[in-house]
Amino acid sequence: MKKYEELSGFLSLKPNEQAEFDRLKQIIKNAHLKNGFKTYDAPLMFREDALLAKSGGDTNKQVYRLEKGDAKLAIRFDLTVPLALFVANNERELAFPLKISQINKVYRGEKTQKGRLREFYQCDADVIARGDLPLEYDAECIALADTICSELLTDRADFTIRVANRRLLNGFLESLGLTTENALRVRAVIDDAEKISAADFAKELEKCGTTNEQFQKIKDFIELKGDNQAVLASLSALNITTDEFAAGLAELKTVMQNLALRGVKNAQIDLAIVRGLDYYTGTVFETNISGFENYGSIMSGGRYDNLVANYSDAKFEGVGASIGLSRLYEVLVATKITEIKPSGVDILFVPITNDAKTYEFCFTQATKEQKSGRTTDILFSDRSLSKKLEYAAKSAAKSAAVIGETELASGKYTAKPLR
Amino acid sequence: MKKYEELSGFLSLKPNEQAEFDRLKQIIKNAHLKNGFKTYDAPLMFREDALLAKSGGDTNKQVYRLEKGDAKLAIRFDLTVPLALFVANNERELAFPLKISQINKVYRGEKTQKGRLREFYQCDADVIARGDLPLEYDAECIALADTICSELLTDRADFTIRVANRRLLNGFLESLGLTTENALRVRAVIDDAEKISAADFAKELEKCGTTNEQFQKIKDFIELKGDNQAVLASLSALNITTDEFAAGLAELKTVMQNLALRGVKNAQIDLAIVRGLDYYTGTVFETNISGFENYGSIMSGGRYDNLVANYSDAKFEGVGASIGLSRLYEVLVATKITEIKPSGVDILFVPITNDAKTYEFCFTQATKEQKSGRTTDILFSDRSLSKKLEYAAKSAAKSAAVIGETELASGKYTAKPLR
Repeated sequence: MKKYEELSGFLSLKPNEQAEFDRLKQIIKNAHLKNGFKTYDAPLMFREDALLAKSGGDTNKQVYRLEKGDAKLAIRFDLTVPLALFVANNERELAFPLKISQINKVYRGEKTQKGRLREFYQCDADVIARGDLPLEYDAECIALADTICSELLTDRADFTIRVANRRLLNGFLESLGLTTENALRVRAVIDDAEKISAADFAKELEKCGTTNEQFQKIKDFIELKGDNQAVLASLSALNITTDEFAAGLAELKTVMQNLALRGVKNAQIDLAIVRGLDYYTGTVFETNISGFENYGSIMSGGRYDNLVANYSDAKFEGVGASIGLSRLYEVLVATKITEIKPSGVDILFVPITNDAKTYEFCFTQATKEQKSGRTTDILFSDRSLSKKLEYAAKSAAKSAAVIGETELASGKYTAKPLR
Repeated sequence: MKKYEELSGFLSLKPNEQAEFDRLKQIIKNAHLKNGFKTYDAPLMFREDALLAKSGGDTNKQVYRLEKGDAKLAIRFDLTVPLALFVANNERELAFPLKISQINKVYRGEKTQKGRLREFYQCDADVIARGDLPLEYDAECIALADTICSELLTDRADFTIRVANRRLLNGFLESLGLTTENALRVRAVIDDAEKISAADFAKELEKCGTTNEQFQKIKDFIELKGDNQAVLASLSALNITTDEFAAGLAELKTVMQNLALRGVKNAQIDLAIVRGLDYYTGTVFETNISGFENYGSIMSGGRYDNLVANYSDAKFEGVGASIGLSRLYEVLVATKITEIKPSGVDILFVPITNDAKTYEFCFTQATKEQKSGRTTDILFSDRSLSKKLEYAAKSAAKSAAVIGETELASGKYTAKPLR
């Protein structure tokens, strides 16, 4: 018979895979909750005009739309816009700064490319203030990213959180004498720099109308590397006098100092980081696994200061860190940083005969084992014992306790390891 | 400024409400995992023809449809059909009996009635066999429902799990000499019996062409009450000879005996239970909160034996128990069986001054507290101490530790309870 043809871009994990996925998800959730982030579980659908009010061309093409009755609806493509709407609608009842954890699926109907998912988990931690949000929260989000990445990657891989600042970059481009429009185009080229060759990078910048001198300065700027203190000193030594540059540099300094105080060692200033999304206004960051940079950023985020604007007169500032967990799961499996392990119960009880006494014994013992924190299962089956034990292995149970006359008589049983 | 107009039927809970919701959800999830159910996280969307292949008129009207490229898609309206498709597509790799836990949202675009949700959580535990599934698994699902309801309702409310059997009912209706078509119509009237008056019940049955004698027999049948053993004896005493009746009675006996062995006290035979959905084929059950029967069933399920049929040549038998958690949450809050409590961190650190030393102290102590299992937060703010403490209260923190010179000098601090 013909099987159901699954939709591409939608994960449908088997039990052992799902168990590993859930373990990773739980690490993220625990880190969020431990640090005072509260859960928000957004609706899936919104009125289309509200969801897409601030989004650009790509999002417009990717979003899933639907109609029901008179309403034009759209399915969330990220978790930030739903959060912004929630905050705008409930500002009087919420305590600010508001720290919110969201672990939920989002939907983007992109043309299917290899590895591109249409349904995927985002795990977002956001801090939102009504009014000014101190830069310490930018550092908190990066520190949280650091904790989470350490726990997800364990000691199997190192990682770097690459930190930059949009205002610093904008102020720098302004100091070159570029028009606002050209500066925006240059920013887009810098954002692409790692995906294109050096020659193409030069060519693309030339198309933006940059002179040789400007090109060299841009190249030097984004290639500034080294110890964070040294990079900050080099930036000061550039003697750039635009307000945005000064403000951005001060912000970056505060954030890096706070990260040092927190003992975060994996955060490194990297001025090549732009973050494509237009709504970022200050701190931006991305995270790469060392040796697997080609997989792209596994955790990223930044500061956005106007997202709630369409639905509230108040000014809200926010900063957040987001993990695309479905993609990260695939990366961790592909790189063997994580493994799919058998994920059955701790003890599978296998009654030899199907009578009341044997069952009752199994029920009593299973309850006891569960009270001691173990997971249990009881196999009900008319098949032979050897078939039952075949099932025990295939179900990935960690141990099996065969229950027969001996066990009933003695009241004792042995859970024999199956691996 | 105009607020965003939320879609009706979609919950959007505030932090304290969400925390209580999550606590209830975790109780269900733990019960599933402890008993060897493995997680399946279904895709949201499916090809429309596959999702709706077995569904009737109501579902067809309620389902959310959308198009993307050439594909006609539909959003899941329950978790059983997605599971059936998953099983059909992966039967070779799965171990049967397969025990699956699903806690996920489903979508039904009903006309908005008061209390009707369009987006809601279903928490399903299903056992699926390739071939025959022993009746012990029907009992297991009911026992699981019993455990979960006890934990959700605590000692604030009693509940009854009302158990019946479709084959028994079908065999009984057959014994009355009703045509198959009339029997189906009578079954629908019995399903409605609790929602309509006695007079309407009689009228509706008359419309199905029942004689006075048949009416009386039906009424007696569904009103058979009492101790489970007594009801089983009364059913035997009816001396009904149809095969379906005998088979249904034997099934019901086995299930009730197994429940007794497990010590389940809240399960009661109730022959008025039909379960509207057509796909049930044997055991069916519903659960009511004592004193709040008007809220309807909070947990229900049953056996379905042909759900995978469209996509596999093999025969799969299944049984499951499902909770509509979003609705149950509303019921538990409305009946005050559960309460929305403040849900902030265990300790909120409040630095008096914003300097490196104070911050560093807070970071170190927060890390220590987290290692002892406490949740923490640190308030970064330029505002006055009294404003900071206002925030502490509004954020629902359980205690606040104000950190100033004294604390830095002594290295000690007190977390003062805020409630």
